[in-house]
Amino acid sequence: MACRTPIGQLCKRASQPSTLNFTSKPTAALWRRGSICQSRSFATPVPPVTQNATSSKGPTAMVFMNMGGPSTTDEVGDFLSRLFSDADLIPLGRLQGYLGPLLSKRRTPKITQQYAAIGGGSPIRKWSEYQATEMCKILDEISPETAPHKPYVAFRYANPLTEEMYNKLLEDGFGRGKGGRAVAFTQYPQYSCSTTGSSLNDLWKWRQRLEGKSVDTKSDNDGTINWSVIDRWPVHPGLVEAIAQNIEAKLLEYPEDVRNEVVLLFSAHSLPMSVVNRGDPYPAEVAATVQAVMQRLGHSHAYRLVWQSQVGPSAWLGAQTSDTVTNYIKKGQHNMILIPVAFTSDHIETLYELDEEVIGESGHKDTIKRTESLNGHPVFIRALADIAKAHLDSGMACSKQMGLRCPGCKSERCAESKKFFAGQQLAI
Amino acid sequence: MACRTPIGQLCKRASQPSTLNFTSKPTAALWRRGSICQSRSFATPVPPVTQNATSSKGPTAMVFMNMGGPSTTDEVGDFLSRLFSDADLIPLGRLQGYLGPLLSKRRTPKITQQYAAIGGGSPIRKWSEYQATEMCKILDEISPETAPHKPYVAFRYANPLTEEMYNKLLEDGFGRGKGGRAVAFTQYPQYSCSTTGSSLNDLWKWRQRLEGKSVDTKSDNDGTINWSVIDRWPVHPGLVEAIAQNIEAKLLEYPEDVRNEVVLLFSAHSLPMSVVNRGDPYPAEVAATVQAVMQRLGHSHAYRLVWQSQVGPSAWLGAQTSDTVTNYIKKGQHNMILIPVAFTSDHIETLYELDEEVIGESGHKDTIKRTESLNGHPVFIRALADIAKAHLDSGMACSKQMGLRCPGCKSERCAESKKFFAGQQLAI
Repeated sequence: MACRTPIGQLCKRASQPSTLNFTSKPTAALWRRGSICQSRSFATPVPPVTQNATSSKGPTAMVFMNMGGPSTTDEVGDFLSRLFSDADLIPLGRLQGYLGPLLSKRRTPKITQQYAAIGGGSPIRKWSEYQATEMCKILDEISPETAPHKPYVAFRYANPLTEEMYNKLLEDGFGRGKGGRAVAFTQYPQYSCSTTGSSLNDLWKWRQRLEGKSVDTKSDNDGTINWSVIDRWPVHPGLVEAIAQNIEAKLLEYPEDVRNEVVLLFSAHSLPMSVVNRGDPYPAEVAATVQAVMQRLGHSHAYRLVWQSQVGPSAWLGAQTSDTVTNYIKKGQHNMILIPVAFTSDHIETLYELDEEVIGESGHKDTIKRTESLNGHPVFIRALADIAKAHLDSGMACSKQMGLRCPGCKSERCAESKKFFAGQQLAI
Repeated sequence: MACRTPIGQLCKRASQPSTLNFTSKPTAALWRRGSICQSRSFATPVPPVTQNATSSKGPTAMVFMNMGGPSTTDEVGDFLSRLFSDADLIPLGRLQGYLGPLLSKRRTPKITQQYAAIGGGSPIRKWSEYQATEMCKILDEISPETAPHKPYVAFRYANPLTEEMYNKLLEDGFGRGKGGRAVAFTQYPQYSCSTTGSSLNDLWKWRQRLEGKSVDTKSDNDGTINWSVIDRWPVHPGLVEAIAQNIEAKLLEYPEDVRNEVVLLFSAHSLPMSVVNRGDPYPAEVAATVQAVMQRLGHSHAYRLVWQSQVGPSAWLGAQTSDTVTNYIKKGQHNMILIPVAFTSDHIETLYELDEEVIGESGHKDTIKRTESLNGHPVFIRALADIAKAHLDSGMACSKQMGLRCPGCKSERCAESKKFFAGQQLAI
């Protein structure tokens, strides 16, 4: 607490325009501890973004896409209903319309209890809005030419839904004959067709419904919103640095004599093997994040990448997080840190599944710990701004990689959605 | 051909002691094209390594571990017999002794035909001996304090087997009361219990048989060989650079108008899902290599990591290389480059499976290509020397990561072998 003022000043300095080169050309070293303000406290209420006189391309809408979660227990039913009806996430084939509602109804009471246990709802909306707002403040300073940057959140299964966000965009003066620039910024660092892909397909659907059918020969003067996509950022040095700092902080909670022997377990949401075998890029990109974090830590500890949240009888990618913890305990290893590596905010998979179930039921609650989620970590927020700035500077509609469908993909929706976003290249 | 002499001179310059700093502190940029001699031609016959007067710790045995392959078709039966009896590679449980010989016998005729088709045998011995010898020449110059470095090759399933290599070590004056220093250098860049793990278990077995049962309190004066292990190097910048250069060279074979749209398919040997779900680190480390190569290429192309060589009815990690090629052809994508990313020499999986089967039977032999294997690539050889020097300088018996068994591991052999190699820390 004593250092709050100096840290505040550092923050201010760090976000002044003079840091432009720093953020547009990141290197791992620049993201190291000490080079960036590390305050975790919430900022004071955010003043509205105002037009910057130097801006030549703004305003720019920055749309944070994520799965979302019910903010109250009353919303759990609707949340699960949307989730189980999403064929990109849970492919149930022709039975989707029948099985989806059945499964969601069956699971609602149990999941409602879990949300009740973590405080009555998911904090993901709070964090997403905070992250988007804080990032836009930094972006206004480091990218004045595209300012003002206006934060939006679009969730796939909870409010604010994509439809709500899109209508807000239109009300705010984007589209409807005025064009304007919007960036769909996935908040999943690693790309999966089940997550980012599903959000993009949903965004594409609402784009068609609310702005009319797109044509291949899109140009920037048809008055619709000009979209580009930040589709993945698994090894951005700021992301890596923020995760590494959280691990280092957690390691300090162990006595010195065992600290070096703590096992690091990076935990990511698993995928059904049907999705993995279709060629989904997610497992490889999560692995890349893990490797980058371990490199940053100088490979100081032994580690494994493990996978959580499997449901149902089909085969999922392992090793499972919960089994891994159980097995290592059996082998005599009681010092472990769980590291959420594929979500950037707290959510039920950290607060309930890891904290209450995996750790809570391990019998070793004092020596099995979890790193903080990224949430409001200032290094992470700055990383988001840096990723966005690099994207805006690049002039790319989306990555080359996003244009390539999975080898086993049979979804025409996916093909059309990818074509639409890649086609925006002509407009931005 | 005209530039052979100048290239030769460059090689000579590049391997002089003045390059010490260059090789001991690699950064990605240093490994870029142009900074290292790129001759692919074989060197003239290797003079025997001679004692270096400045050496304080040498000689050092550098043992290249790999799976090996039959050098002639007559050796295929023995090769397969050893392969199918290895429970680390193909776990058949209590039926190993019965099923192993049965399966190997059944597959021998077909595999013999395949080796006949690629010239009558595997080139892996030729390449391994070349790589080890050339690396030792560089090491003698950049690490004179541990010189002379003596190259050895130890294969898991073909000659020279681990036993043969170990006996040669003893004949050459290592061990037998004289101690001496040996480095087990895996030639699999990414660690799997099926590959590097199996080789290390075999090395440990022969160490016990030929030098007596090890004790936990090993010190450097008991006269046995002091071992250390280079157990993985998935993202070494020299490895990454050599693979990237091979991709760039292959891309140049495409007409300019399609070059940017070529899809890169990184192909690695698959693993059974039982091994993946046990917590084997290999898939994550292969993914890390791929990410590093794509970063080096500036994410210039769309790509996928795919998995080859599945056998038998059990579930293996996908997407499969062959299915991927078929599926992309169906989607209209005919320009693809296959990139072997987990083996460093040509072998039956590149020369037959990729070249003859996947590409040969694709119907698009002219537009589906394969990058050269690393084989004698001078950037790669120098990377090996750099990895070895960093290891020798580190004073580490093995990585922290190697000490951690897989969460689902039940092999006592694995536990003991890991304990042995980690315990060498007291001796080196």
